[in-house]
Amino acid sequence: MRSVSEYWSSAARRAEPYAPGDQPGGKVIKLNTNENPYPPSPKVLSALREAVGPDLRLYPDPTAAKVRSTAAKLYGLSPEEVFVGNGSDEVLAFAFQAFFHQDKPIRFPDITYSFYPVYARLYQIPVEVVPVTEGFAIRAADYYRSPGGVIFPNPNAPTGLLLALEEVASIARENHGQVVVVDEAYIDFGGESAAPLVRQYPNLLVIQTLSKSRSLAGLRIGLAFGSAELIEGLNRIKGSFNSYTMDRLALTAAEAALEDSEYYSEICQKVIQTRTALLNRLEELGFRGTRSKANFVFAAHSHIPAKEIYEKLKERGIYVRYFPAPRINNYLRISIGTPTEMDALTAALADIVQHPHA
Amino acid sequence: MRSVSEYWSSAARRAEPYAPGDQPGGKVIKLNTNENPYPPSPKVLSALREAVGPDLRLYPDPTAAKVRSTAAKLYGLSPEEVFVGNGSDEVLAFAFQAFFHQDKPIRFPDITYSFYPVYARLYQIPVEVVPVTEGFAIRAADYYRSPGGVIFPNPNAPTGLLLALEEVASIARENHGQVVVVDEAYIDFGGESAAPLVRQYPNLLVIQTLSKSRSLAGLRIGLAFGSAELIEGLNRIKGSFNSYTMDRLALTAAEAALEDSEYYSEICQKVIQTRTALLNRLEELGFRGTRSKANFVFAAHSHIPAKEIYEKLKERGIYVRYFPAPRINNYLRISIGTPTEMDALTAALADIVQHPHA
Repeated sequence: MRSVSEYWSSAARRAEPYAPGDQPGGKVIKLNTNENPYPPSPKVLSALREAVGPDLRLYPDPTAAKVRSTAAKLYGLSPEEVFVGNGSDEVLAFAFQAFFHQDKPIRFPDITYSFYPVYARLYQIPVEVVPVTEGFAIRAADYYRSPGGVIFPNPNAPTGLLLALEEVASIARENHGQVVVVDEAYIDFGGESAAPLVRQYPNLLVIQTLSKSRSLAGLRIGLAFGSAELIEGLNRIKGSFNSYTMDRLALTAAEAALEDSEYYSEICQKVIQTRTALLNRLEELGFRGTRSKANFVFAAHSHIPAKEIYEKLKERGIYVRYFPAPRINNYLRISIGTPTEMDALTAALADIVQHPHA
Repeated sequence: MRSVSEYWSSAARRAEPYAPGDQPGGKVIKLNTNENPYPPSPKVLSALREAVGPDLRLYPDPTAAKVRSTAAKLYGLSPEEVFVGNGSDEVLAFAFQAFFHQDKPIRFPDITYSFYPVYARLYQIPVEVVPVTEGFAIRAADYYRSPGGVIFPNPNAPTGLLLALEEVASIARENHGQVVVVDEAYIDFGGESAAPLVRQYPNLLVIQTLSKSRSLAGLRIGLAFGSAELIEGLNRIKGSFNSYTMDRLALTAAEAALEDSEYYSEICQKVIQTRTALLNRLEELGFRGTRSKANFVFAAHSHIPAKEIYEKLKERGIYVRYFPAPRINNYLRISIGTPTEMDALTAALADIVQHPHA
């Protein structure tokens, strides 16, 4: 429906929903939404099986106390410094409402997670869009002394580029009185989390997800780490929206996943190795990729348009992501799959590159 | 933390979060959050066990297509007339944002679900609070020609009183151009849903939950039925907030629960029978209860204050709900449990009534 309904509020009228990547069914190679190619930990699956029972008739713990306390231990924090939400997108939405203002612009990069402008539009938060460099790098100093706060992913999406921890710290330090949100959805694939810095910077909020490195996209679990006053700010919005955002099974899976660091380190290492191999292979095929520290690569071919490659891959049942946006419309974002999936991808790419007009 | 943080937005500052009922652990009789005393359908549990597996690494279907189509069939509607959310509280929050306005007051009853004023405060929607009658009844005509829309539960909470379907229809009819939200969380315990009326009234939104009659409070599943333009309004807000609000396991459970009408009719009938028996027993003990059509009763004792009874029950490990609010601060809201739980409750009440100052 494209027309406007007389029943819609001004919020519903101005909303421009985020378009997630396709979720095709059937037998395809799905490299378009940065899912982990490896299954969740066997310990997660067995905890879930055990939790399926009559207790599902009862409300979950609205404070997610166990998950908060397990997550806190990862970074030497206390449970009061942790928030749990229904995917990091929900946590981001709460952060926009809790810390950003309708009369003071926030800053984020021009090339970044495309949900940020969607939130800003819904919550009527003005924005200052800051261009990344020619090589897509975020320059920390561009974010100092922001009028109303800062948000950026680290590593950035869809470029995969990582900002060093000292630079992240400098942005927090140089934004006295404003909140700096670092969206670490992809941090476990080669970065170092800023979560331990939240004691030093009470204005720093670090958001993570169990969707990527913990292979739990299907269960919607997001985390935030911050000073107790920032976490209380999130709780005030959450408690005015939905008392029980996390269901019993998601809470069970979250706790088990956060406890099984060994399994997840291992699969993250495999993803990192596959990423290196893929980037090498892509270079041989005439692509130029960024130095991604995420579970995807971001690459452009020397002479074949990204849109053409995207469509030809789709015809062959291989889904990658293509963004028809300024500066990046000649790039493809390709999630790291299993080595077998990467072989199928590079074989298809070799064929497309060799027969560009077929 | 009671103080205000310099980092909070005006939204976080004005928020006054809803206080859900206690979720005590351990061996207690829990009659305070209107959970169903019977477990979810065996078919739901077996579908869930089957869904626990490697696919949890993948995002869920963001459109919840299967659940919408199953829910639509219940009322002879199409999937475009159904919305699925993370509990009916989330659906309510989206409805407040999508259909209510910052410059036109909405109407709701003075005695009602206490989350409504919380949403109104967060989203800055002015309200006209309409008193229910001396006997707690909602008078339909009080809601005609509202300036900015209407919301009320049917049956109402915490009174359990049901408004007849013709009266609900009259409120929709007499609010041309404004949205009327009917919150049917408790409709399956003796009421008739207004969902089939949404084709006749494009301004009518009917919200339900699988928490109560489907014994799935632990999985957070809410539904809305309305015209395609109202559903599209909800989707615009949802898509600007969180692409994937429903996880894979909640979607699996929702579909299986909506398909197993037989099991759920049976347990709802048991709850209704237990409610009748409890009301009779309470009368013998000197209580006066409303004619509840919900899975709880709402009752006051002839001379012992509700607060005193509430506290004495709590001492004995029996949790009921007490609202220290005008007009209802001498009432207890007691969820319907199993017959055995009701026996324990009435034995405790008999003892408290016989020894009021012990």
